[in-house]
Amino acid sequence: MTNSNKIWGGRFVHQPAKIMQEINQSITFDQKLYKQDISGSIAHAQMLVDKKIITANEGEKITSALRQIQTEITEGKFQFSKELEDIHMNIEHRLTEIIGDVAGKLHTARSRNDQVATDFKLFVRDEINEISDIIKTILATIVQKAEVNIEVIMPAFTHLQNAQPILFSHHLMAYFEMFKRDLSRLEDCKIRLNQSPLGCAALAGTSFPIDRFQTAKALGFDNPCANSMDGVSDRDFALELLSILSILSVHLSRIGEELVLWMSKGFDFISLPDSLTSGSSMMPQKKNPDGAELIRGKSGRVVGSLITLLTALKALPLTYSKDMQEDKEPVFDAIENIKKSLIITNAMIAEMMIKPENMKKMAKAGFSTATDLADWLVINLQIPFRQAHHITGKIVKLAEDKNCFLEDINLADLQNIEPRINKAVYGVLSVESSIKNKKSFGSTGNDYVKEAVTNAKNYLKN
Amino acid sequence: MTNSNKIWGGRFVHQPAKIMQEINQSITFDQKLYKQDISGSIAHAQMLVDKKIITANEGEKITSALRQIQTEITEGKFQFSKELEDIHMNIEHRLTEIIGDVAGKLHTARSRNDQVATDFKLFVRDEINEISDIIKTILATIVQKAEVNIEVIMPAFTHLQNAQPILFSHHLMAYFEMFKRDLSRLEDCKIRLNQSPLGCAALAGTSFPIDRFQTAKALGFDNPCANSMDGVSDRDFALELLSILSILSVHLSRIGEELVLWMSKGFDFISLPDSLTSGSSMMPQKKNPDGAELIRGKSGRVVGSLITLLTALKALPLTYSKDMQEDKEPVFDAIENIKKSLIITNAMIAEMMIKPENMKKMAKAGFSTATDLADWLVINLQIPFRQAHHITGKIVKLAEDKNCFLEDINLADLQNIEPRINKAVYGVLSVESSIKNKKSFGSTGNDYVKEAVTNAKNYLKN
Amino acid sequence: MTNSNKIWGGRFVHQPAKIMQEINQSITFDQKLYKQDISGSIAHAQMLVDKKIITANEGEKITSALRQIQTEITEGKFQFSKELEDIHMNIEHRLTEIIGDVAGKLHTARSRNDQVATDFKLFVRDEINEISDIIKTILATIVQKAEVNIEVIMPAFTHLQNAQPILFSHHLMAYFEMFKRDLSRLEDCKIRLNQSPLGCAALAGTSFPIDRFQTAKALGFDNPCANSMDGVSDRDFALELLSILSILSVHLSRIGEELVLWMSKGFDFISLPDSLTSGSSMMPQKKNPDGAELIRGKSGRVVGSLITLLTALKALPLTYSKDMQEDKEPVFDAIENIKKSLIITNAMIAEMMIKPENMKKMAKAGFSTATDLADWLVINLQIPFRQAHHITGKIVKLAEDKNCFLEDINLADLQNIEPRINKAVYGVLSVESSIKNKKSFGSTGNDYVKEAVTNAKNYLKN
Amino acid sequence: MTNSNKIWGGRFVHQPAKIMQEINQSITFDQKLYKQDISGSIAHAQMLVDKKIITANEGEKITSALRQIQTEITEGKFQFSKELEDIHMNIEHRLTEIIGDVAGKLHTARSRNDQVATDFKLFVRDEINEISDIIKTILATIVQKAEVNIEVIMPAFTHLQNAQPILFSHHLMAYFEMFKRDLSRLEDCKIRLNQSPLGCAALAGTSFPIDRFQTAKALGFDNPCANSMDGVSDRDFALELLSILSILSVHLSRIGEELVLWMSKGFDFISLPDSLTSGSSMMPQKKNPDGAELIRGKSGRVVGSLITLLTALKALPLTYSKDMQEDKEPVFDAIENIKKSLIITNAMIAEMMIKPENMKKMAKAGFSTATDLADWLVINLQIPFRQAHHITGKIVKLAEDKNCFLEDINLADLQNIEPRINKAVYGVLSVESSIKNKKSFGSTGNDYVKEAVTNAKNYLKN
Repeated sequence: MTNSNKIWGGRFVHQPAKIMQEINQSITFDQKLYKQDISGSIAHAQMLVDKKIITANEGEKITSALRQIQTEITEGKFQFSKELEDIHMNIEHRLTEIIGDVAGKLHTARSRNDQVATDFKLFVRDEINEISDIIKTILATIVQKAEVNIEVIMPAFTHLQNAQPILFSHHLMAYFEMFKRDLSRLEDCKIRLNQSPLGCAALAGTSFPIDRFQTAKALGFDNPCANSMDGVSDRDFALELLSILSILSVHLSRIGEELVLWMSKGFDFISLPDSLTSGSSMMPQKKNPDGAELIRGKSGRVVGSLITLLTALKALPLTYSKDMQEDKEPVFDAIENIKKSLIITNAMIAEMMIKPENMKKMAKAGFSTATDLADWLVINLQIPFRQAHHITGKIVKLAEDKNCFLEDINLADLQNIEPRINKAVYGVLSVESSIKNKKSFGSTGNDYVKEAVTNAKNYLKN
Repeated sequence: MTNSNKIWGGRFVHQPAKIMQEINQSITFDQKLYKQDISGSIAHAQMLVDKKIITANEGEKITSALRQIQTEITEGKFQFSKELEDIHMNIEHRLTEIIGDVAGKLHTARSRNDQVATDFKLFVRDEINEISDIIKTILATIVQKAEVNIEVIMPAFTHLQNAQPILFSHHLMAYFEMFKRDLSRLEDCKIRLNQSPLGCAALAGTSFPIDRFQTAKALGFDNPCANSMDGVSDRDFALELLSILSILSVHLSRIGEELVLWMSKGFDFISLPDSLTSGSSMMPQKKNPDGAELIRGKSGRVVGSLITLLTALKALPLTYSKDMQEDKEPVFDAIENIKKSLIITNAMIAEMMIKPENMKKMAKAGFSTATDLADWLVINLQIPFRQAHHITGKIVKLAEDKNCFLEDINLADLQNIEPRINKAVYGVLSVESSIKNKKSFGSTGNDYVKEAVTNAKNYLKN
Repeated sequence: MTNSNKIWGGRFVHQPAKIMQEINQSITFDQKLYKQDISGSIAHAQMLVDKKIITANEGEKITSALRQIQTEITEGKFQFSKELEDIHMNIEHRLTEIIGDVAGKLHTARSRNDQVATDFKLFVRDEINEISDIIKTILATIVQKAEVNIEVIMPAFTHLQNAQPILFSHHLMAYFEMFKRDLSRLEDCKIRLNQSPLGCAALAGTSFPIDRFQTAKALGFDNPCANSMDGVSDRDFALELLSILSILSVHLSRIGEELVLWMSKGFDFISLPDSLTSGSSMMPQKKNPDGAELIRGKSGRVVGSLITLLTALKALPLTYSKDMQEDKEPVFDAIENIKKSLIITNAMIAEMMIKPENMKKMAKAGFSTATDLADWLVINLQIPFRQAHHITGKIVKLAEDKNCFLEDINLADLQNIEPRINKAVYGVLSVESSIKNKKSFGSTGNDYVKEAVTNAKNYLKN
Repeated sequence: MTNSNKIWGGRFVHQPAKIMQEINQSITFDQKLYKQDISGSIAHAQMLVDKKIITANEGEKITSALRQIQTEITEGKFQFSKELEDIHMNIEHRLTEIIGDVAGKLHTARSRNDQVATDFKLFVRDEINEISDIIKTILATIVQKAEVNIEVIMPAFTHLQNAQPILFSHHLMAYFEMFKRDLSRLEDCKIRLNQSPLGCAALAGTSFPIDRFQTAKALGFDNPCANSMDGVSDRDFALELLSILSILSVHLSRIGEELVLWMSKGFDFISLPDSLTSGSSMMPQKKNPDGAELIRGKSGRVVGSLITLLTALKALPLTYSKDMQEDKEPVFDAIENIKKSLIITNAMIAEMMIKPENMKKMAKAGFSTATDLADWLVINLQIPFRQAHHITGKIVKLAEDKNCFLEDINLADLQNIEPRINKAVYGVLSVESSIKNKKSFGSTGNDYVKEAVTNAKNYLKN
């Protein structure tokens, strides 16, 4: 660089080597994979022994030193080094310190490419299990909360406008269905990822007579990957996990939004305990639903992580390119934030205090049983639908003018509009009867919600 | 609006009603759902008859008129109207024209909310089948292409740098694995979506004694949705499909990138027929790989569609909000573009002409068998890995200085570096032997690729 | 393809040529550029005449025929053809029909690459003007609405919890600031894009002695692009527009959310006219704020469009690649939807009916003037902040126990907590005085809001 | 929680309080804002003194203690605490430790809402300056590299197919234009963000007689924000920065892709020094262009960060919601990665070694001067364009059959195709003359590239 460049360039000109190391290294984040890396190495070493590629004695030395390293890392005694770039090299270097040249034999018939793919898959599989466990907890919490509050009535909304009365338990159980699907997607992802990349070597396989089925089995994989180039290039499992977590985060954003609404002065349906809200030193009555807002807002970073990886992988030719180093951080970040969000969600569902009177009061507003009235006219008076709607419209108008609930209009006034109406109609006009009268599977009818809760409990038992 | 506003506002002030209709309507795109809408209505009508909610005669009239409407639409004789907003109202209106007031009975115990969810799920299910069929075609095409070119040698790349020699068939078969996973994801999605929303009504279920199991079965669903609020609010199936198509589009972008590279002067590995390229009136020899570029570039809009729907659904409270009208266009657009991309991909794989000499020439460059040499030293001379690497490095340096291939260095020169090397080493130095010597499952070894092709053919038979 | 492929492949095998045309063509969407294409051609033809590359007579023939074509298209009489691929070829073909071989001279020293870049930039520039005009209308509408309702009091929220009383006009004016920034971003984008690609030819420039400054000026560009390769490869202007529209769409989603909340039973702060809501045949009182929901939901597709183009352009080498054909549809879709959303937004702001009592009632709830009380203690009694907060906390607790507003506690009770409090304190406890007492620039203090409205009107005049 | 929940719930049930702290705190990342936080506080304290809200003595104590804290943090002696949640509380707490109760006076007429908005804006402004400086360095590097290699010839590509010969310097200068636009966008963003939120207080302004113009000026802002609610809710500046960095990252991905291609065996146009590549212990000749791959791959996380924030802010009602805590990490991550990427880019451009022979060799392939030939026919023989193309096609076909360059066909053969062709035609057939003959502003013509370099140097001087 010449003079003219120095004007701005002075600060940067001597940095490239340092920055290159900084940008090239991954140890600051991939150290999370240490357990998986060590498990993979132990399985590999054992197989090398069995296939007589290394001796039993060598295998034992390697395995025992790896176990020691795992302890060192777990106990925080391990010195990670950026010069050694990544978790694989850091562990390898320490292995050599401990057992000398034998360490080098571990890397027979293996490359960093298949090693990192294996580690990452094992990590994702472990985390799927973790996340699934938390979701199962939420499912159980929902069922309990629904059961305890099984008869509580609240309004259901469309367009955030009052629509029909429903049971609060029915509303909660809608989230049971969502989280159940999330769980099912995680399960499918876990099955699909469960092919071992170990032994794909750099990309072409190896000329050593290794047994990939043995290492696959030892690590809990169903099979080795069928194609070595795909084995080292594939990050579908990470994309699929991020997709699943993105959909899950949308579910969380929906329940988050509802909790924020329910906590607002406008609705005042619930309160949350102090441990799950933030207060204000000024206004002792103020409780901010921070947890609910965070599970809503964190949907952004999960979706952002998905985009990060989709974009990074777009248009990459086979096989490994350094761009793929960008695969781990978005996955780590999404997992960490989803786990925190799920735990908070579970706590909020478990510990929110319901205010049934406020819920019911709003459920009764807005002539929310007008549909029930129209249905009654069709069923009981054999009035065609369109005419039934017309009559209902007139009755609602009357209630509006009188500023009363539908059930408060007297029979004479009803018969003035439609003479055949009889007092049996009052059996469908209250919010309680509206709910009780629901007759379809999966509806908010009391019996159907009880059935749903029972089914859910059975599902959770298995 | 007052004067000051007129300066800019004049053009907009009278438009709201018109724009509101324009923005609120969906018939311009949801007419795609007409078949599904009619199937759903016929199933519903039949159930209403069986449950004696309407008479057999009414049911017949409705069904027969719906079939007539389907024919009218298919034959392009149907007049769609924006005033009637969506496909449901357009069909209902026409139904009333044909059979009069009886038409209104069809809508007993049903709402637009469960109707649109049902239609959309049926549509997505149909399209999953379509897309799966095209992917199966590609899988078969890949296997054929691999089989025909099973022994063709090419270089494999990491960092787009020559890495190791492989079989072209092995490279192709990596895509077989990717597309197979795509297929598997589609299958899982189809199973998961297969719960019928029909009968969830507006959101709460209905007081009519309907049989949701019957309509579910009639429409090929496994079960009715278990929760009516979830049934009308859930768009997971659309998000999951868009996620799957996004991952698939990344696969397509990778093969697209490779085809563009392979067609470039730099690599010159393949040529594509005129029907799949665009030419130039000026340069008759020029063939632009438009198809490959488009399957690469179209990954953008598929990922964009996923973001569209994730963003639209973020933070929506239950149940239906008008925001959800934004669910269909991204799905339609992604499906249409993926299908086109897949068909072009299939054609490009099937019809590309391979240039084996060019591939092999580049495979031989860059001392791509250095790893094989090192492995040979370890296996045959029991030289520890690190030392083997060191020796290999020296030999590569020698070849570089001599500007020759590894296999062209004479034995004396090799022994000068490591005396124990014998002529058997030449058995691993050529690209052919490098490939042949691969011994691990899933590797590029000739026998293993043949095995992979056989397995793939068996997979496709089932 | 062989037999085994026919199983699934039969439907696809003969389609490639047709699909290739389908996927390669752009006339179905780029016909939107016809005016810009013709303007560009006329400017180019005039320059060719002036530089004596074609004769004046040829120039006239071309120009006059192009004007005729513009009329044909505007009047819907033009037959677009997919065989002719894009708008440029469609127009060229028609030009040849009208004036014969002379048409070919128009394409001297020009290529489709610079032509399409020019057309697209001109289009984006025109649309920026359109969108800016609608935003200016909204700004004027906001100012009017704020002025008319200048004294209306409402609660401001943090965490959707009541925080402090503010003027409704102040709340509205927050959106004035947002839209003003959007306008400013559009203006910057327009200035930056205003470099003419015309004359960059395919990518290298041309050997004809053209005058790029002349065509640039004729088309209203500030200058010709300085580098011909950049001129044909650059789509920054489209990315920048989509970024700006994405930020704008987030603003719209925020006001959309607020309108939905304000329309809900929970808040009931406003009502919207029938023309901007959708009703229900069943419940005559029901008004769904469809417009507000749509401007919220459509943020998804604008952000999705941005992702579409960012992803498509990622990692494209210079210069033109066919992937860039994917640049127009996301831009067209985002523009169209933003324009509709803005017009609806303007109408909703202009026509919403305010319910001041409901707003004020909620503003008074939640001890929203506690901060004012604490400030009064600091200012008037020189009590340190922390102690003032402590005292305020006690008073709020008392009001909570008494279930009354702060202003309803009698002086004795206040002095019981802090003896130095005097009756002047009541001057800050009501929501009216809380607002009036605000003394900082940009605050909700009545005078400051009036000042803001005046400033806004001055801004709009210029 | 009951028994059934314990099965999965045991691990989570006692965590909520801890997790809530973990998820609610921001000190682990917002400590980056410490300098800005302290600058803001000092400006605020000085204004409080000037407005006589606190005494000069108090102001001095506060200011001096803040300076001490800044030193403590810079020197790594400060103990950050998660219990104290964020940077503001951590500093406030330490301030109280040092100067006791006076510390509390600093927070007069200020809230965390305006404080954090101010800090974040100051931080973004500082980083815009940093990034701009690095971009200016790259611009200077490009100009130098272009100047040194001004006559080097290389092929330009469309569709990655050889298109026309160009100067390497011209190609490089295309990136000059891109980065110049990036710089210009950053400048606009900086101007637009330069409104001070300080003094907006919680959201409504304050009753203290503060001078927001004074603090704005002291902090280098142009003005205070005009609306207090907007002042605390606005994150446009962060969205705009992320948009700009996303476009910039697309530019980086394009140059990254080109460097990877140019380093590949297929093109072999450049080599990079060891300090900017990674090697392989096995293959000493191997140089992986890790830096180029990383600037390509990191586009993913920048775009992901943009999506993170757009999604988080979507549909948030005014004013502050906790979701907004998600605003900083994506901005920090994007900034950090863009800065690293830019520094590596600068180094790669500065230090890449050009291989002019390889470039020229490929430039000559593919009859890349056919366009020049056609233009010659039009200009010199007054042959209409379409006919000129036809003749050129024939000549290219002849060269293809003879497997020679266009310039190697003898005159007789040319005249056989078109008798009027004379030997002057050879003046346009070589790649050198093709370039020299370019006559349009901004073209690859040698004089025009020199002019561009001169203009660029002048631009950089100012």
